[in-house]
Formats: sequence, C-alpha cells, structure tokens
Amino acid sequence: MWTQFKFDVSTRGRGTYDITREVEHGVGESGVQTGLMHLFIHHTSASLILCENADPAVRSDLESFMSRTAPDGDPMFRHDQEGTDDMPAHVRSILTESSLTIPITNARLGLGIWQGIYVYEHRHAPYQRSVTVTIQGEG
Amino acid sequence: MWTQFKFDVSTRGRGTYDITREVEHGVGESGVQTGLMHLFIHHTSASLILCENADPAVRSDLESFMSRTAPDGDPMFRHDQEGTDDMPAHVRSILTESSLTIPITNARLGLGIWQGIYVYEHRHAPYQRSVTVTIQGEG
Amino acid sequence: MWTQFKFDVSTRGRGTYDITREVEHGVGESGVQTGLMHLFIHHTSASLILCENADPAVRSDLESFMSRTAPDGDPMFRHDQEGTDDMPAHVRSILTESSLTIPITNARLGLGIWQGIYVYEHRHAPYQRSVTVTIQGEG
Repeated sequence: MWTQFKFDVSTRGRGTYDITREVEHGVGESGVQTGLMHLFIHHTSASLILCENADPAVRSDLESFMSRTAPDGDPMFRHDQEGTDDMPAHVRSILTESSLTIPITNARLGLGIWQGIYVYEHRHAPYQRSVTVTIQGEG
Repeated sequence: MWTQFKFDVSTRGRGTYDITREVEHGVGESGVQTGLMHLFIHHTSASLILCENADPAVRSDLESFMSRTAPDGDPMFRHDQEGTDDMPAHVRSILTESSLTIPITNARLGLGIWQGIYVYEHRHAPYQRSVTVTIQGEG
Repeated sequence: MWTQFKFDVSTRGRGTYDITREVEHGVGESGVQTGLMHLFIHHTSASLILCENADPAVRSDLESFMSRTAPDGDPMFRHDQEGTDDMPAHVRSILTESSLTIPITNARLGLGIWQGIYVYEHRHAPYQRSVTVTIQGEG
C-alpha cells in the first residue's frame, strides 16, 4: 500500500514550523497499520528536524546554536547572491535533514512522547516550502 | 514482507552503545532477501550513528568533538531544567540522526566492513532508550 | 517491486562528486511510478549530501565550513593512524549523511529544482567508494 501527497508550508522567516498534526493525519487516512512514513523537503535552504516539542526554548536555543555555528555574513563564504543568510542556510540544511523516516505502528505514527516534526526555515524572507509525504506499509 | 519490533537499550551515561549484532539478528529472522532495515530512536536527547567500529578512539574523539561543539553549561542556552547537559543533548541529537536506513542484500545487512551501528547517549544519567526496527523487502 | 544495485565512485581527493544522473537513470530503469529511492554509502570517511546544484561556490563554501569546524590535524584527536585527515573525515561523515531517501513521483526522482546528489569525499587520497541504490514502489 502506497500513499503519496505533497503539501506546502508558508514560512514567515527563519524559525521552526510544526507539521506534526498534518502528517499524522495523513497516516490515519492511509489505512496503513505497520509501515513507514517518509517526509522530504524539496529545498536546500530549509530542512526538517525532529525536536523536543514541550518547551519552545529548545527551538530558540537550537537557533542560537545554529546562528553561532554558521553565522550570517561570515566573510569565509563567497556564495552570497541572495544575501548574508544565503550560504548559512545551505550549511544549516546539510547539518540537519532533508528527509525524515518514522515508523508506523498500530496505524499510528510512532513518535516518542517528546518528539515533534518541524520544518526549519533558514532564510529570513518568507517562502513557500514543499514537502512530499510517502506512506507505505501493510493494512 | 514487513517485520517490526522494538527493543530497549539501557544506557549508563554519555557515550556510544553498539547495537549492530542485535539488529543484524533481526534481519536474519525476517526472511527478507532484498530490502531495507530502518531504525528509529524515540527520544530527542539520544541518537543513532553509523561509525567506524575498529578503533574505540574514533568514538571517544567524536565525543571530544561534540563536547567542544555543543558544550555542557553553555551560557547561551536557556533550556536547562534537567541540567547543564539538557540542551546540548538536544543539539547533539539534531547534529546526528534519529533514524538510520540500511540496505539488506542477499539476506544480510549491507554494512561496510568498518561500519557499526550505535546508540549515542547524550545525557550523563542512565536511561532506557527505545528503538523501533522496521524491516521490509522481498523474500 | 524492488530493484537494488551497487556502483562505485572513484574519488580524486577531498570534495564533492555529482551522482544525480546515475541514480536518476536507475529510477527510470526500475519501472517504479510511486515509491522511494534509497542510497547508502558503505564507508565512514565519505558521505552523501543533497546540496544546491547551480553555483559551485556553494560546495566550496561548504568545504570551507567543514574545514573550519573539523580541521585536519586537530590536536584534540587521538585517532590519526591514516593521517591528519583521518578523524576529521569520520566527524564530517557523521555531521552529514550515510544514506539518503528521495521520493519517486510519476516515475521520476522527486528532487527539487536546485537539489543535486553528491558523494562527499572527506579524505585527501583517492578512493573507490561503493554506493548501494535500493528502489521500491508500485509500477
């Protein structure tokens, strides 16, 4: 059994956007009992993360960490056509994930209690980000 | 053909725990000849890595690298309810992996000679860490 | 439907090697309409990345970033049997990916317009790097 659909996330600048509910809904619709859900983001300056979902400070601390590790306007970077956040966004995407795969168990997405699924927008400007969800398994 | 099972790893503080044998055994039991094995850890402060398996210094050097990159007690971090290793553990999890997917070829896990599979515990206290293994393919 | 094949990439020192065409060709051959393609590299000092494919400066800037983050000859590292780039190569592999999973939609690999697939060689010497491609889905 295969289900595949695409959806867009409208980002409003750098930060994390919770998509857990949306993809959990897709699992329910699919009829899959045991299987896997795969998420893929079709971009190189936004990414996907699994992150602690209880305290928003975790995601702002993560942002602090990324800002220090791959700072905007780093003079080391030559690729800055789209601005000082252009190359850092590519680096951040590579340090995180372009895809996530999560088990489906008893027809539910098998996330841990504290795991949420987020699109991580690395650019400061707003963007439309496309995510493809592929669900497979046995019914 | 789908096989799915869950097992726990009892960690004894920060460090790496080899689970290669355990998951290889699951592949043998599954009857899959050609396929994929997926591992998922249900936590945000422990993760999974594929790492060189011959010289233990590789994993201690990796720990040195992570300790320098995301140091405990970093004053930048606000999320420290569970201690100075709380937020660094989340960062380390995101820099590594929450899931791994490995090919199955001729009924065996297709790891390279020097690749081992490890749970990477990022907290100093001992924990029970749950891993779900999903094996699929053709027999 | 399952298709699995292995191919080698001959690297000529540290840097990125585009394998997009080769794996896209495999998708076409497989007959899969909707599914997933999985890539796995059987090494711990070379890895796989999805990266911006238009401006080569992105990949050289990425290399600058990695060289600064995990520098060759770092006195912190003890594992240096094969040279000053030995342990940094393992760290870089863990910060990037050993495997990639990409959706197949309408019999084509569902990459974003700016996404290319690269083997990232982290050692300075030339190597033969093996990649296993596993394609599954419905026809």
